[in-house]
Amino acid sequence: MISSKKYTEMTEGELERELAALRQEYERCATLGLKLDMSRGKPGADQLTLTQDMLGVISTPQDCITENGLDCRNYGLLDGIPEAKRIFSDLLGIPMQNIIVGGNSSLNMMYDSVARAMLYGVYGSVKPWGKYDKIKFLCPAPGYDRHFAICQSLGIEMITVPMTSDGPDMDMVERLAASDETVKGIWCVPKYSNPDGIIYSDETVRRFARLKTAAKDFRIFWDNAYCVHDIYGEGVSLLNLFNEAAAAGNPDIIMEFASTSKISFPGSGVAVMCASDNNLRQIKSIMTIQTIGFDKLNQMRHVKYFGSADGIRSHMKLHADILRPKFDAVLAAFREKLAPLGIAEWIEPKGGYFISLNLLDGTAKRTYELCSKLGVTLTTAGATFPYGIDPRDRNLRIAPSYPTPQELTEAVEILCLCSKIACAEKLIG
Amino acid sequence: MISSKKYTEMTEGELERELAALRQEYERCATLGLKLDMSRGKPGADQLTLTQDMLGVISTPQDCITENGLDCRNYGLLDGIPEAKRIFSDLLGIPMQNIIVGGNSSLNMMYDSVARAMLYGVYGSVKPWGKYDKIKFLCPAPGYDRHFAICQSLGIEMITVPMTSDGPDMDMVERLAASDETVKGIWCVPKYSNPDGIIYSDETVRRFARLKTAAKDFRIFWDNAYCVHDIYGEGVSLLNLFNEAAAAGNPDIIMEFASTSKISFPGSGVAVMCASDNNLRQIKSIMTIQTIGFDKLNQMRHVKYFGSADGIRSHMKLHADILRPKFDAVLAAFREKLAPLGIAEWIEPKGGYFISLNLLDGTAKRTYELCSKLGVTLTTAGATFPYGIDPRDRNLRIAPSYPTPQELTEAVEILCLCSKIACAEKLIG
Repeated sequence: MISSKKYTEMTEGELERELAALRQEYERCATLGLKLDMSRGKPGADQLTLTQDMLGVISTPQDCITENGLDCRNYGLLDGIPEAKRIFSDLLGIPMQNIIVGGNSSLNMMYDSVARAMLYGVYGSVKPWGKYDKIKFLCPAPGYDRHFAICQSLGIEMITVPMTSDGPDMDMVERLAASDETVKGIWCVPKYSNPDGIIYSDETVRRFARLKTAAKDFRIFWDNAYCVHDIYGEGVSLLNLFNEAAAAGNPDIIMEFASTSKISFPGSGVAVMCASDNNLRQIKSIMTIQTIGFDKLNQMRHVKYFGSADGIRSHMKLHADILRPKFDAVLAAFREKLAPLGIAEWIEPKGGYFISLNLLDGTAKRTYELCSKLGVTLTTAGATFPYGIDPRDRNLRIAPSYPTPQELTEAVEILCLCSKIACAEKLIG
Repeated sequence: MISSKKYTEMTEGELERELAALRQEYERCATLGLKLDMSRGKPGADQLTLTQDMLGVISTPQDCITENGLDCRNYGLLDGIPEAKRIFSDLLGIPMQNIIVGGNSSLNMMYDSVARAMLYGVYGSVKPWGKYDKIKFLCPAPGYDRHFAICQSLGIEMITVPMTSDGPDMDMVERLAASDETVKGIWCVPKYSNPDGIIYSDETVRRFARLKTAAKDFRIFWDNAYCVHDIYGEGVSLLNLFNEAAAAGNPDIIMEFASTSKISFPGSGVAVMCASDNNLRQIKSIMTIQTIGFDKLNQMRHVKYFGSADGIRSHMKLHADILRPKFDAVLAAFREKLAPLGIAEWIEPKGGYFISLNLLDGTAKRTYELCSKLGVTLTTAGATFPYGIDPRDRNLRIAPSYPTPQELTEAVEILCLCSKIACAEKLIG
């Protein structure tokens, strides 16, 4: 019999009996030949089909002409078509002239922005970032593994900043940014943070807006990936850092990114970056060497299909309806199977794509391995931290979107089982 | 009366009378208020409409599934869908596994390849190119201004190599590449070269394949932009450098690029890069940090519309039918109005997008300015040379594709007039 008593209050004998029962159950599951994936924030097939009709929404030559008379089928217009800028302007609350509508990937725009800074510097740099012996980025963690991978790839040293329920530990951010000229940036997912699902508090955003940095060319990489990705209704709204920073006399500090990857099609969406006039002037002067322009037909496809920012907002309710039962299933299983045992903590996110599970210290990797052997793939343990090393080895990122509800139920069952085994083993020591 | 006698055989008095007549004609043209653009290789609107039906060719979810069962609408597949690789493989004569099908811009892939080399080096580099005090590229010229702009932007010194009717001066290429470890690359447009329209001879390609370079990490940037862009039938074919280099034991020396920008839609086409196994392994290991993948739906759109490499080849005949009369008009005007005067030389290209006009030394800039004042925009004089400086100030690049035939006739008339004025002025001294 598997128990629901607090593991931390069990005797060693009780724990050993519990572990034996869990292992029996594990052996049974090993015979099921499962193949389930909760590793990446991929939309499910039913979500992809929501925007299927977008594919046919432009067809005639006239459909391809922008409001300022430009032919989307031809070369030109480096920074995107005006009607797409307007929609993102409404959506993000950022002036049209501060927006570049790009290609299919905000990750690509972020990587290019950091690579560009390495090669050329940013507006206000005294030299390219790559000309320093070493530069550093602040990395709130747990965070997005692909942000950390950009730093690692480009040889940028990462300094872990703990996350709180209000966002990154701002005392630490302020101290580090103010004290070291080689600290050049910070990665932020300010709304429904990856993986915790935290929305940065107004105070956190205001402190970012007023941030005093030793480097004259420090940048906040504000990855607003989940700006309209509410699952349980429109909850707490995120304060607009672009406006706040400008009001604080600090307009150049932010580079904001977003995309429709999880609104229309991942891989065939439209990405944007937003920055001050000074920043965009410098960025465009280099971007115009890199490309003649992005895919304007795909931008127009999005414009014709959604029509407006409100069109996107109401479309997101359809995604929420599909995602909500999946998040519910994971959270219900955690509440039922893990909560009583005192071995796990998590935040119940109101949107985004992830649930972040913290187990007992020193059990995340073991849980990941146990799941793997049963055919349940999670995001690699440690991936949510710089260099892939979770100092407490406790965090697992759960991505509930891709599996079907049935698969998800099975996968979470396995996850809970493996978490319990790993924690029981740890407590026995 | 405007003459058709050789300017070089006129007396000063004759030239002065000629110039007076030309200037009278120029004044008349100044009253016409023209606005004509022959500056960029942009397809005309009738060319864009040729592939209009491509926009509706994928619509159902089933249309979006690749032959290996992957959903193009979702994340994944960094290097492109297999069916798109197969078409480019057939088109370029390069194995599928040596192809990355990318986004909408081969220029972007080229820029990224050089930027990547600056930041990380290429396969076989002892250090990133950016870690040298100075590296150099060989730049056959006249050449493509956007290639030169990449070098200039990234601080790569450019060494001009003269073009011959067989391609770059290979004696010079071999000497420079063999003698200097900091010479890291060369830009080539081997078929219908921009702007001369030259097809590199078999011997030139073979010498590239066998090239001995002082740098262990020298790369030939082989921009096969006009690989199927014949205008006057399938003429001389280009020898396959990818195969020749492999056969010569030099497989890693080439990075080849191409795109459908001038096959389907400029800005919404599909670009590819091709390289050896060693090169691609290194490139993909970095590209996977930059992006999760390119727009696979657009790749599928191209696959479904063209069906095969032969589908593309026969489609190109439709482009040729539109472009041929435009090239004919320019060449006829040159033959009629410039040839008798002994002030101009040009190659009659059999494909591509440009006609390269060489006037008397020291007259290209003046001709460009005279045209500008009449509302006729040419590619900036000098742009076809590194740093925008044509040492003989004689080359002008004519792009006949974008204007309508009527506009083109007017524009070429102006160009011939201005060429004559500039040359007459020069001869009078």
